Amino acid sequence: MVAIATIATHDPLLTTLRGMSDAPGGMLGPLLGADRVAATLDARAWLHALLDVEVALTHAAAGQGLVDDAWQVERAAEELRDALDPAVLAVEAVEGGNPVIPLVRRLRAAAGPAGAAVHPGATSQDVMDTALVLLVRAATAVIDDDLRGAADAAARLAATHRDTPMAARTLGQQALPTTFGLVAAGWCAGLDRARHGLAGVVGTLPVQFGGAAGTLAASRPHGPAVADALADRLALGVAAGACAKPATDVVLLAATEVGEVSESAPGASSSMPHKRNPVAAVTARASARRAPGLVATLLASADHEHQRAAGPWHAEWPALTDLLCATGGAAARLRTCLEGLQVHPEAMARNLSLTDAGGTPNHAGDLVDRILRGRER
Amino acid sequence: MVAIATIATHDPLLTTLRGMSDAPGGMLGPLLGADRVAATLDARAWLHALLDVEVALTHAAAGQGLVDDAWQVERAAEELRDALDPAVLAVEAVEGGNPVIPLVRRLRAAAGPAGAAVHPGATSQDVMDTALVLLVRAATAVIDDDLRGAADAAARLAATHRDTPMAARTLGQQALPTTFGLVAAGWCAGLDRARHGLAGVVGTLPVQFGGAAGTLAASRPHGPAVADALADRLALGVAAGACAKPATDVVLLAATEVGEVSESAPGASSSMPHKRNPVAAVTARASARRAPGLVATLLASADHEHQRAAGPWHAEWPALTDLLCATGGAAARLRTCLEGLQVHPEAMARNLSLTDAGGTPNHAGDLVDRILRGRER
Amino acid sequence: MVAIATIATHDPLLTTLRGMSDAPGGMLGPLLGADRVAATLDARAWLHALLDVEVALTHAAAGQGLVDDAWQVERAAEELRDALDPAVLAVEAVEGGNPVIPLVRRLRAAAGPAGAAVHPGATSQDVMDTALVLLVRAATAVIDDDLRGAADAAARLAATHRDTPMAARTLGQQALPTTFGLVAAGWCAGLDRARHGLAGVVGTLPVQFGGAAGTLAASRPHGPAVADALADRLALGVAAGACAKPATDVVLLAATEVGEVSESAPGASSSMPHKRNPVAAVTARASARRAPGLVATLLASADHEHQRAAGPWHAEWPALTDLLCATGGAAARLRTCLEGLQVHPEAMARNLSLTDAGGTPNHAGDLVDRILRGRER
Amino acid sequence: MVAIATIATHDPLLTTLRGMSDAPGGMLGPLLGADRVAATLDARAWLHALLDVEVALTHAAAGQGLVDDAWQVERAAEELRDALDPAVLAVEAVEGGNPVIPLVRRLRAAAGPAGAAVHPGATSQDVMDTALVLLVRAATAVIDDDLRGAADAAARLAATHRDTPMAARTLGQQALPTTFGLVAAGWCAGLDRARHGLAGVVGTLPVQFGGAAGTLAASRPHGPAVADALADRLALGVAAGACAKPATDVVLLAATEVGEVSESAPGASSSMPHKRNPVAAVTARASARRAPGLVATLLASADHEHQRAAGPWHAEWPALTDLLCATGGAAARLRTCLEGLQVHPEAMARNLSLTDAGGTPNHAGDLVDRILRGRER
Repeated sequence: MVAIATIATHDPLLTTLRGMSDAPGGMLGPLLGADRVAATLDARAWLHALLDVEVALTHAAAGQGLVDDAWQVERAAEELRDALDPAVLAVEAVEGGNPVIPLVRRLRAAAGPAGAAVHPGATSQDVMDTALVLLVRAATAVIDDDLRGAADAAARLAATHRDTPMAARTLGQQALPTTFGLVAAGWCAGLDRARHGLAGVVGTLPVQFGGAAGTLAASRPHGPAVADALADRLALGVAAGACAKPATDVVLLAATEVGEVSESAPGASSSMPHKRNPVAAVTARASARRAPGLVATLLASADHEHQRAAGPWHAEWPALTDLLCATGGAAARLRTCLEGLQVHPEAMARNLSLTDAGGTPNHAGDLVDRILRGRER
Repeated sequence: MVAIATIATHDPLLTTLRGMSDAPGGMLGPLLGADRVAATLDARAWLHALLDVEVALTHAAAGQGLVDDAWQVERAAEELRDALDPAVLAVEAVEGGNPVIPLVRRLRAAAGPAGAAVHPGATSQDVMDTALVLLVRAATAVIDDDLRGAADAAARLAATHRDTPMAARTLGQQALPTTFGLVAAGWCAGLDRARHGLAGVVGTLPVQFGGAAGTLAASRPHGPAVADALADRLALGVAAGACAKPATDVVLLAATEVGEVSESAPGASSSMPHKRNPVAAVTARASARRAPGLVATLLASADHEHQRAAGPWHAEWPALTDLLCATGGAAARLRTCLEGLQVHPEAMARNLSLTDAGGTPNHAGDLVDRILRGRER
Repeated sequence: MVAIATIATHDPLLTTLRGMSDAPGGMLGPLLGADRVAATLDARAWLHALLDVEVALTHAAAGQGLVDDAWQVERAAEELRDALDPAVLAVEAVEGGNPVIPLVRRLRAAAGPAGAAVHPGATSQDVMDTALVLLVRAATAVIDDDLRGAADAAARLAATHRDTPMAARTLGQQALPTTFGLVAAGWCAGLDRARHGLAGVVGTLPVQFGGAAGTLAASRPHGPAVADALADRLALGVAAGACAKPATDVVLLAATEVGEVSESAPGASSSMPHKRNPVAAVTARASARRAPGLVATLLASADHEHQRAAGPWHAEWPALTDLLCATGGAAARLRTCLEGLQVHPEAMARNLSLTDAGGTPNHAGDLVDRILRGRER
Repeated sequence: MVAIATIATHDPLLTTLRGMSDAPGGMLGPLLGADRVAATLDARAWLHALLDVEVALTHAAAGQGLVDDAWQVERAAEELRDALDPAVLAVEAVEGGNPVIPLVRRLRAAAGPAGAAVHPGATSQDVMDTALVLLVRAATAVIDDDLRGAADAAARLAATHRDTPMAARTLGQQALPTTFGLVAAGWCAGLDRARHGLAGVVGTLPVQFGGAAGTLAASRPHGPAVADALADRLALGVAAGACAKPATDVVLLAATEVGEVSESAPGASSSMPHKRNPVAAVTARASARRAPGLVATLLASADHEHQRAAGPWHAEWPALTDLLCATGGAAARLRTCLEGLQVHPEAMARNLSLTDAGGTPNHAGDLVDRILRGRER
């Protein structure tokens, strides 16, 4: 297939994909915008995060004088990072119900005489929960980057069209006039709030090896921390909603009969040459629609029994990683949508003339300015 | 029925229920703990909240010199509070899709010459959203009261049983020992966090008529505020989870074979005299389980189109009021459960002896003290 | 308030509402179309269903010669139907966790010497589950009536506009032409499928007192039946979706810029006289949007422990009754929408001319005929 | 890492995993039982299913005399099956919003002069929806195999323990006695019902190329079929629930203080040698808990607009494939759990003696026989 080679040479992403039997996020990953986030959550990323936590635990215990030979554990972990096939670890994880147990076994074997310095005073839950925090941090960095890109694009649209009149619509009907600048500024404000909320997640997620291993032991079992984390993770659901809002507006404003915006690279149709599908907005919506059900699954795990739940705890892992992919997908596709959005003021004016709804609102421009100035702080 | 009269005389709640064909929350309301919150959200409560908002709007406009005769509007509203059957307003609300439109018509009629001072510069959405905030405030005051009662009861259990050894359990199996004091302190901490989160809701919900009516008009359409509110309302879902956790623990610890706790007024069975059902914990769990699906419904409404969504906006009203009832029900039933919880240290010791899991943790008491001291601030 | 009296005299519904402090379904019930279904599920309906089950149980046991004096139990039940305030029973239900326990106590007292013939060989779960089946049957009869009305209206639209050309739209963009007849026939087919699915629910729900009480005892505890029922109840979620589809289409086709349909009694706006809100479609959508989260709650209760779950069982009661109200509300409001839908062929033609998408499809009329003929069987 | 090679040689699964950077289902796939189903849904499986549909479409059109050279299209498809990297197709799918558009382009190029015979009279939706049906069929074959294995194991337990007395438990409290045989027969019946429901899915999913391409064109756009399929797919949610029920029972019966069952290969703990975690049941529960939220997402897509929804359609793809993995994972892990379940009649007798709840039920054995006989038909 000549075409494959041709494409592969001009797309750096494909270099990393070559030779794989699956794409990050599968066949639907790039399409739904989830591939970049999915790559931070694949089996190798899990392996590396688990090893990072084990090394940090050993160093923390060594700092307290509880274990020796921390550097040998670090070297063994470094060795496993590349030598251990994550798929093998995934299969070994079945027996004990999590990948920490076989990883500790392998790490001890690799550390040789320093094996006693591996996993000091820790349980599987300590390592799994902390590794998940590392993964969430890496994934949210990607999500935040796309949310910022989308918000910046919305801000540019708001500034450019600060005074472009268009119809506000309630219940699908034209209401009073507004400006496209104010609409875009509203998108921007929602995305900025979502970023702020997500930053809160990263800031409060507990990744601490600072205390002595002894303190960790005493504070275990620590069920409540899970419930606490849940509260923070809801920010992801809200961020998905903040992406869905502009995406839905773009789909409706791009409708054939409205025609007020269009995407810069609309999707074509093989059979209908006149079609200009707003595919970036469409797939942003699709990704965002996955979020509410996933948040419900995460919330339901608050009903966890005793010191570690027999199922709800494990259910949280795929639900959280799926939620990261859904939110990240929505942000990535919305960014593409907004960065190239074409605005058609003449269509806005034409549609506005369908109803005699009054003149442009006096204060719209001031509100746009206030929102955009608020971003600079 | 003699018995009905007998009960009614010693239960003040029933006084308010007499002559009704439905209980607050229906047949299942009291059972699921939702009756007290439901009473803050019934049709009459809606009527009063809508009238309060209209009066406040008129006063705000009068303060700006935009309308006269605010006192006449206030008097007309006062008249409607009692004279207008809320069920009639509910039926009239069908035509326009919300109760504000018929209420404004009636208020204008009742205000006579001052009719022009009614609903100045406002839309139905302004009034509905603000009335909903008033209802949420009233309902969360009830919820907070029960969360506080439940947290206080958990704190007392933690203090009393600071050093009572019991088995910690992970995946249903006994793990290391812990103390019941630490378990109860964990419940308390989760409930306190939930109260803190809910207080955030009340603090940030936008109820402002301070600006001139003119400003309100300019800031409309204000879709983004809806998304903003969603973020805050998730606190209700988290609070329900914070109630579900102790309720689930109590159900499991009260199991016949475990027997470590029991409720002070367990439910009986007509056919099985030996049964002691922990009904307060059971119904707290049941109420809490309603929350995740309702949160998903609320999150899905973030996908709202244009300046006011044609469906998602309306779907939020019942979802939010149901979520208040579910969370409030969980808090009320958990409070009853914990305020009368009987603890059986001898059963804890006996169960602990089933596994040779080591001695009581050194730091458990210190952690309990730290959590309880943290409450005093 | 003169106006109240005026309205009350010409609306028979209001006669039953007078003197109440709440409307069926509360302030939002009629607006969201849920009032008629809610009236079949209120506290009095629960009381009557529970009494009907107890009387049937006694008669079944008497038929087996296990108890005497069944007629005295029936007479006592008849007495309680009117004399027992359902709100009192709701409060008494708190103690044991369900209303059956206090109802049996009262029924025994009222039956006097025949008290031994009350509740023979039954548990609370037998009575609650069977009463819930009776309530579901009554509620689904109402829902089916509205689904049928909506489907009939869609069929009439399909017949009338069998050959009216309009644009088919995919991803919001005009695609190939279709006919409005085919669109309406698709709505009709979806609604008919939903009715068929719901009829399956009613047909398979287990309401049997035929066996001897002894058989009931032997077959208890019967957890699996709950899971079985869950499968059937999903039909309600699907029916809500079948209502959401046409409602969403109507909202979009009624948009100011599209204008291809309008409701016969669109909602007005106090401040914007040009508005014609498709409120019936909007509120049908809103009701339907409540369904997915409620179905998730019901599905989650499949994870029920042992022979009767400590929470999931109780959580099913409000979730199921809410789902009935949501589905019924969607059906009722959609029926209103479709029964009065105004179709504007000239707008369809004008919009179609925006894209040069080819002629009317050859087979559209045949497909409409086939769908409509299929209904007659 | 010597150990990796060692493991790889005795596990055939690993042969297919070698050289990959991700496991099917990622790090958590095998652990949650989802790997076997995930392998039927990966990017390569999508590619093959899409090609199968295109070839079938061409053959159907050739059968009608509408195109020539079908065999050349088939040969080109055969070539692409291996030569086209699915990850490349996944990236190319971004532009048009689905992988069909670039696949048709490549297939036409590969078919050379026969390019006109590719994708005759079809849209992307035809191909995507039909390919998804093929994938669902392959995945449900795996799921059904595990459901059958689990049901068979439950039937064997029921036969072996037909008369083993144990306590029935309601609301966590011992109620009347039952037998373990009846409990296991109940699990079996639930799993058999789930299999029956899933077989209904496979039987009714529309995979038809039989009609001429012309008929396909006329029946398009065919939104209602999507809603129809939704009804069927709910069977997956119910199947997940049928797996959750026994898994939850096993977790509770295996609790240290109950000890009535244990898994044959319980999970160990690195730090607590006495632990015997029922990890298969725990992870079956975890997988099943993902289902309700995913079903809600699928149901929400019933609200699809016009002839093809701008987002809800695309959201269905990941939700459905995730639901297949969740249900398949629950079935696979439950099968492992039940196939090796150890039953401890002496513990059942000891626990039963805690309450004086009466003798073994008369009819329990008969009910077990009836359920098991019902399976043979």
